Amino acid sequence: MSDAVSPLASPFPALPAIAGVTPRIARAGYKDWGRCDLTYVELAESTAVAGVFTKNVCCSTEVEMGREQIKGGAARALVVNAGNANAFTGYRGREAVEQITAQVAAHLGCPQDQVFVSSTGVIGVPLPKDKARAGVETALTATPCSWEEAAKTIGTTDTFAKGATASAVIDGQRVEFAAIIKGSGMIAPDMATMLGYVFTDAAVEPAFLQQCLSAANVETFSCITVDSDTSTSDTVLAFATGKAGNTPLASFDSPGADAFAAALKDVCRQLAHLVVKDGEGAQKFIAVAVTGAVSDESARKVGLAIANSPLVKTAIAGEDANWGRVVMAVGKAGEPADRDKLSIGFGGTWAAKDGQPLADYDEAPVAAHLKTREISIEVDLGLGQGRATVWTCDLTHGYISINADYRS
Amino acid sequence: MSDAVSPLASPFPALPAIAGVTPRIARAGYKDWGRCDLTYVELAESTAVAGVFTKNVCCSTEVEMGREQIKGGAARALVVNAGNANAFTGYRGREAVEQITAQVAAHLGCPQDQVFVSSTGVIGVPLPKDKARAGVETALTATPCSWEEAAKTIGTTDTFAKGATASAVIDGQRVEFAAIIKGSGMIAPDMATMLGYVFTDAAVEPAFLQQCLSAANVETFSCITVDSDTSTSDTVLAFATGKAGNTPLASFDSPGADAFAAALKDVCRQLAHLVVKDGEGAQKFIAVAVTGAVSDESARKVGLAIANSPLVKTAIAGEDANWGRVVMAVGKAGEPADRDKLSIGFGGTWAAKDGQPLADYDEAPVAAHLKTREISIEVDLGLGQGRATVWTCDLTHGYISINADYRS
Repeated sequence: MSDAVSPLASPFPALPAIAGVTPRIARAGYKDWGRCDLTYVELAESTAVAGVFTKNVCCSTEVEMGREQIKGGAARALVVNAGNANAFTGYRGREAVEQITAQVAAHLGCPQDQVFVSSTGVIGVPLPKDKARAGVETALTATPCSWEEAAKTIGTTDTFAKGATASAVIDGQRVEFAAIIKGSGMIAPDMATMLGYVFTDAAVEPAFLQQCLSAANVETFSCITVDSDTSTSDTVLAFATGKAGNTPLASFDSPGADAFAAALKDVCRQLAHLVVKDGEGAQKFIAVAVTGAVSDESARKVGLAIANSPLVKTAIAGEDANWGRVVMAVGKAGEPADRDKLSIGFGGTWAAKDGQPLADYDEAPVAAHLKTREISIEVDLGLGQGRATVWTCDLTHGYISINADYRS
Repeated sequence: MSDAVSPLASPFPALPAIAGVTPRIARAGYKDWGRCDLTYVELAESTAVAGVFTKNVCCSTEVEMGREQIKGGAARALVVNAGNANAFTGYRGREAVEQITAQVAAHLGCPQDQVFVSSTGVIGVPLPKDKARAGVETALTATPCSWEEAAKTIGTTDTFAKGATASAVIDGQRVEFAAIIKGSGMIAPDMATMLGYVFTDAAVEPAFLQQCLSAANVETFSCITVDSDTSTSDTVLAFATGKAGNTPLASFDSPGADAFAAALKDVCRQLAHLVVKDGEGAQKFIAVAVTGAVSDESARKVGLAIANSPLVKTAIAGEDANWGRVVMAVGKAGEPADRDKLSIGFGGTWAAKDGQPLADYDEAPVAAHLKTREISIEVDLGLGQGRATVWTCDLTHGYISINADYRS
């Protein structure tokens, strides 16, 4: 955890205990940083698992293995290493992960492929096996920790611990969600990655859990960007222990499935926003709402083109209602757009409509809005019914300082 | 022209006069900046023209009209307005451009569609017709100016004037090229755009001139990036007056066509490099050489993913041989790549080979290379014969200052 806390940080929320989930932490000493850096979460038998992973072609061993493991649908444990991403480390990196899964599987008496591992930190250095072994050994029998301790332990360059919660009622039975995430840049200085974990006591069939997580991902994690860079290790896993005792959800025809999916999406959106709010150098949280696109997917791509534009992000940092840069970003997205139907607004005030500046454009409310911490940009393409909202942060001197004023 | 000159700037070269080309400048006063801001270039009858334009969907009126005009293949004049991009200005912007083309056409006694207009500067403000009329009136009969004066006059946030030259021998006849360009960010603070103009006295059929320019564009202007943003007005025009008296070039079967195409590409590459060297906040010029891709186009896309990565660009700014960030950028390009065949080097020294850090990696020569102004990054994908080189600059505090510490 860094010293200078993001101005967009929020206090760690009160997260409920989740029946069947026991987090523990230990100090493996992957870096010389005098803090815990290994998180071990034990999961009850019959816990269902689902996951979404980075699309980066050069992904880490952990991501490759995780993609295979979720096909089995069952999980008994999660291990998260902080301080070493174990990416781009060849067979030696893979051996280290297999050592961890074997060690935990022996302790729990479960199949090795039910032990999930994530790693985040330096690229190109194989995870040291001796440190991993001693760290896991300690963690397996450590006193259970709080969610906040676990959230801190999975962090690297994060400036605050990030957690989210929600609940849903399934067929009269209340189920709880507790979730933690780490991430600040897509890859922080030689550190890496967004890693998110959602735990629920709901009973859910793995296939349906995957369906809900994938759907939530499209509207949450896939709609955030800090700097357009994509980590080699991004991972979000959802675990459902079934301890709430509801009739297992198998599809949207199951009673309460809609409420479950909505709560899961709510938790994912909270987590996604927290990552943006810890974006490297972020001073402002920006929501880009695109309407009138030919499809929702087209709206999302236009939103990401705006949210990834360095010129738009620096304009917001400068509290400048520079709608011309938004026009430019719409035009470069490669999606259907018609300059003469395009409207741009800030904080609910239109600056340009139908391809021209508004004659009676009142800059005062826009200028006041841009001085706040939470900015909205509205873009109407005037073509169809497609819509999406994308979230990002501004681009400031802080980003350059974090990423350039640094030597490896 | 800005006060703080780029550390990568070079002196304006000696450009030859081009028979049939007469540049003049005037002060239209589009901005209150006490300098000439209107450039008028008169071209001999029978001058052939070719052009390449921005792919931004929300392009300016000038770009829309230019795309139509080059189909005619003939040009008699070029007018460049600096200080107002006339983009996103609806019918009023179009009227202003049509007024200019009519005024010049009346003076020269030529068809209106042989007068080409470019504009660069503020977005969303229609070009003021009265200022344009008076400026053009003055320019039409002004004393001819030097290439350097013309290069300065088309500039906006450029920190130095940019020109290039080349020559070729066509069937025993020497032909000359003189070229000027402006541009520093893809869109500078409320200013805009890369505008480039190549003039030659060679005799070339318009269709072949277009073929050569389009081919040169793929390996030059399409291989540079400052900040991944794409202006609404980017334009490069090539004019061939035919005054050298060579047998007109009609295809690559014409004697001397290869030499002409090579000289044109050479000029385009010089111009493209100059734009990168005036990139907003640039302290280092970066060449990204990609080899071993499945195709040249795939190599170009991988190169652009690296050159557009904020994390790679900040690493170079920090003189940090952070090859992990290059791996990340390769992986996010969406092109075929195999982590375990990937090699990364800096300044000719490999840091990682076949997906793993080199055991005997010597950081000393890399560290020395990264302290220089001109940086090379080598990436071998190990898959095929495709190759491309892409050029960019580093991402520094200067970029943020120029684009964020600014109010419109």
